[in-house]
Amino acid sequence: MHRERFYTLSASCPDQVGIVAKVSGFIADLNGWILETSLHAEPPANGEPVGRYFMRFEIRADSIPFHLAEFRSRFAPLADALQMDWKITDSAVKKRVVILVSKQEHCLYDLLARWQSKELDVEIPCVISNHADLRGFVEWHGIPFHHVPVTADTKAAAYAEVRRLFEEVRGDTLVLARYMQILSPDLCAAYPGRIINIHHSFLPSFVGAKPYHQAWAKGVKLIGATCHYVTEDLDQGPIIEQDVIRIDHSDAVEDMVRYGKDIEKTVLARGLRYHLEDRVLVHGRKTIVFR
Amino acid sequence: MHRERFYTLSASCPDQVGIVAKVSGFIADLNGWILETSLHAEPPANGEPVGRYFMRFEIRADSIPFHLAEFRSRFAPLADALQMDWKITDSAVKKRVVILVSKQEHCLYDLLARWQSKELDVEIPCVISNHADLRGFVEWHGIPFHHVPVTADTKAAAYAEVRRLFEEVRGDTLVLARYMQILSPDLCAAYPGRIINIHHSFLPSFVGAKPYHQAWAKGVKLIGATCHYVTEDLDQGPIIEQDVIRIDHSDAVEDMVRYGKDIEKTVLARGLRYHLEDRVLVHGRKTIVFR
Amino acid sequence: MHRERFYTLSASCPDQVGIVAKVSGFIADLNGWILETSLHAEPPANGEPVGRYFMRFEIRADSIPFHLAEFRSRFAPLADALQMDWKITDSAVKKRVVILVSKQEHCLYDLLARWQSKELDVEIPCVISNHADLRGFVEWHGIPFHHVPVTADTKAAAYAEVRRLFEEVRGDTLVLARYMQILSPDLCAAYPGRIINIHHSFLPSFVGAKPYHQAWAKGVKLIGATCHYVTEDLDQGPIIEQDVIRIDHSDAVEDMVRYGKDIEKTVLARGLRYHLEDRVLVHGRKTIVFR
Amino acid sequence: MHRERFYTLSASCPDQVGIVAKVSGFIADLNGWILETSLHAEPPANGEPVGRYFMRFEIRADSIPFHLAEFRSRFAPLADALQMDWKITDSAVKKRVVILVSKQEHCLYDLLARWQSKELDVEIPCVISNHADLRGFVEWHGIPFHHVPVTADTKAAAYAEVRRLFEEVRGDTLVLARYMQILSPDLCAAYPGRIINIHHSFLPSFVGAKPYHQAWAKGVKLIGATCHYVTEDLDQGPIIEQDVIRIDHSDAVEDMVRYGKDIEKTVLARGLRYHLEDRVLVHGRKTIVFR
Repeated sequence: MHRERFYTLSASCPDQVGIVAKVSGFIADLNGWILETSLHAEPPANGEPVGRYFMRFEIRADSIPFHLAEFRSRFAPLADALQMDWKITDSAVKKRVVILVSKQEHCLYDLLARWQSKELDVEIPCVISNHADLRGFVEWHGIPFHHVPVTADTKAAAYAEVRRLFEEVRGDTLVLARYMQILSPDLCAAYPGRIINIHHSFLPSFVGAKPYHQAWAKGVKLIGATCHYVTEDLDQGPIIEQDVIRIDHSDAVEDMVRYGKDIEKTVLARGLRYHLEDRVLVHGRKTIVFR
Repeated sequence: MHRERFYTLSASCPDQVGIVAKVSGFIADLNGWILETSLHAEPPANGEPVGRYFMRFEIRADSIPFHLAEFRSRFAPLADALQMDWKITDSAVKKRVVILVSKQEHCLYDLLARWQSKELDVEIPCVISNHADLRGFVEWHGIPFHHVPVTADTKAAAYAEVRRLFEEVRGDTLVLARYMQILSPDLCAAYPGRIINIHHSFLPSFVGAKPYHQAWAKGVKLIGATCHYVTEDLDQGPIIEQDVIRIDHSDAVEDMVRYGKDIEKTVLARGLRYHLEDRVLVHGRKTIVFR
Repeated sequence: MHRERFYTLSASCPDQVGIVAKVSGFIADLNGWILETSLHAEPPANGEPVGRYFMRFEIRADSIPFHLAEFRSRFAPLADALQMDWKITDSAVKKRVVILVSKQEHCLYDLLARWQSKELDVEIPCVISNHADLRGFVEWHGIPFHHVPVTADTKAAAYAEVRRLFEEVRGDTLVLARYMQILSPDLCAAYPGRIINIHHSFLPSFVGAKPYHQAWAKGVKLIGATCHYVTEDLDQGPIIEQDVIRIDHSDAVEDMVRYGKDIEKTVLARGLRYHLEDRVLVHGRKTIVFR
Repeated sequence: MHRERFYTLSASCPDQVGIVAKVSGFIADLNGWILETSLHAEPPANGEPVGRYFMRFEIRADSIPFHLAEFRSRFAPLADALQMDWKITDSAVKKRVVILVSKQEHCLYDLLARWQSKELDVEIPCVISNHADLRGFVEWHGIPFHHVPVTADTKAAAYAEVRRLFEEVRGDTLVLARYMQILSPDLCAAYPGRIINIHHSFLPSFVGAKPYHQAWAKGVKLIGATCHYVTEDLDQGPIIEQDVIRIDHSDAVEDMVRYGKDIEKTVLARGLRYHLEDRVLVHGRKTIVFR
């Protein structure tokens, strides 16, 4: 993160000659100072005539001679001509992150430590949990805590309440920090590319419940964690970040759980940061991550 | 590896109080000098009353006052009393490793470099391939090369010939160094715990053909390789060693293949070394690896 | 960690034939159930006639027919005969860990999250800091917080106060969780093998102040962290644990600091766990770590 | 690497607004198809008014309507205006790599395996060694081998001969693949940014001789290797690539040597590839590596 206020323009469009020249030329004509540029050309998928181009620019806000609304309206014609999906965000406008937790505290402690030190420079308008255990810890940080129990009978109502709370606080991103519950399909569908989960295995291995038990039974020599966007297909959404740690035969499932927590919280934090800094561009079932 | 000649005793038995005391007491009574000891207690599996105990000792040969045959006959009563599966090997007797290759040379070059420098201190009585491409390279090293083509029609005869060659040279271990062919079930069954494969994915993800294409399609952020014992179930045998390397969206399948080769050869070499030094004890579908 | 109460016997002695037989025989004669055994023979150092043997046993408490005091007195003659340095601890007696912090919260949050979940199953009788910033967070957890400012003029008094507090609460281990101050030589000397520091570099590279700045200036491609025992020689004490993370040219010092924090807290937590579980045996300027 | 023939333009210049727009605009005006773009802005060093901008473009050769000489002359005015250091290379012109070895074969086997499979798609006009041991292996590959012994008395003549051979074959890059000799200062100075070494430690730790012995004595928990440009200062040249592997107390120096070899050859191969693909831009004592 840069100290100066900056705008982040992230976009993708059908590949053709001259995209970078046009976009960087547009910025240069405004005398815009580009702090960071990331570019990627994805080759055509099977049967498609043309690939897709992905880009991300960080531009110093004080180098642009007008406000973001004006930038948007001036950039729109070029974006249209290039058939772009695009957005531009302002580092001075903090993202609003709602955290869903269950009883396990390691990811929550980790996220709040980062938030406390401003490494994670966002608003956390509330934390929602299906258990009350972590209320005190959350509220001590001055963050509202909502206890929304989830039972087999109350699922629909519970997820409606989660959605209502997320809307009420105008959340940008919903983070499942070891939430241990499967969101309803309509909640998943309501916020594509905005719900982030940490799964405690190296996907696609060990989908679903008790992945450390599955890993132990299989006798793998490394265990991992995966941060991904949530879609309606359980543990199948686009992967943002993964990592692993070495184990051996002497590690029982409980040891794997303990080692795994360290990977989970680190992978979640990295993936969330990439997402919040608009470094992740979804491309079908995969992601482009401009680290 | 130690410079001095040594014996390696590796064993497992039902767990009970006093196993280590009895075995190490037996060795101490002979005035045997133990260079290295590795022990592991595996808890009872579901429904079983007792766990299993695994052990491995390296004993200086010159500290034992008689030959290995004598050691074996003296140790047998204790081993029987403990219901042991056990073996003892002599570092002065080189293992005989037969290598199966196809056209890809990276694992073969790597193994022969290690063999040349005596890091891999074994006999390689022959290399067998379904292609003739690597004949010159193998023969330059003074190692016999057998071209045994495999086609859909000749599979049975081809694997019979592989088996005949392996028997003829009194092979101890058969290594599939990116052999790219699926061995016949009866060949697999003939040498349990003696055939080693390197699979180019982080199993259990991406079983079977074209795992790098599968990994690319899934968008994983790390790719890996797995060294395992071959069983009749494709890519399902007990895992000996695994490792991974980080990739990102800019890596095409060809890049993954290139990165993957480095992991494949290293993981195969490590797994093979553990096996040859009797550091791997198979326990059902898993392994104990005393590194 | 095992669920059952257990004793941990850790020891070292001059190497000779039969050590394991004698010690495991002693335990077997008591019908003691060994849960975990770790052994290591260190070869003779230059000019010394004999190497040193290191061992660690976890023994189920309920398998020993008397209390620890009795165990100690019965084991002493054997330990004396073997010229052992040894100790035996009881998993039911929680270690007492005093934490020293400054203003940075990441290691403290991490340790308290582990303590809260009982992964770190110790007493934390107090936290001491040269700043008051983290008082609220610590006290919310029900842990006493002592603000002991350190200035150039008050160093001697400050460290005397730290020592007094540590003694008062009968601390076993003093953890510098990014304390950012150099302890006085006499404080270091008072607790050999009992003070643990996390240094934010891969030692021996980048000793002393601002290691991330040093790493940036040097252009290294990986940065690391080192958990070590504190001695009078700055950042030179025996290393317990280390790890690294990949960086590249696009990472500024601030990025290294952010990546580094994740390594620091993980490495400190791992090293501290090894220490508290009596898995670390100091051998001169190095450590044996029975993971 | 792309299958199509392409040009690689790599450059750096003082940072200012509009560099990317101008360069990519120049390419777009030619209708040049950019396959890959990498950009990096290095902030101003202490006391300097402006930072430096680094860039690398891969451009499809068949998209440019004239030859490289013409491209060069047309691009020169823009490069001059931007005060660029720049070069452009053609993927159809293979680089010429001369390898220096001693007696250790692991890096040589590794490089020749990659060369054999065209992963390392270069000319190797000769291998030079101060020992004759590897002559047969090199010549079997059809590569000339020169034995240039180096003794205390003949150093000057020997390095003059190395230089003569390198010039004679019009070498582009000189690779020290565990050469174990210190090049003369004037040889180092003659080819800045063109001589690549693999050092068997994680620099800046353990400079000079016997780094694994140094690492063992220090008790580090990870060992590494460093690929760097050779300068007159021993083991101090700009670092291109590094990696590490975990060890523990049970690893003797010989084990570290064995583990280390695997890191050495991988790190050398990666660093060399980055160099040969013009992905490495030297910036003072550091490198920008566009992976």
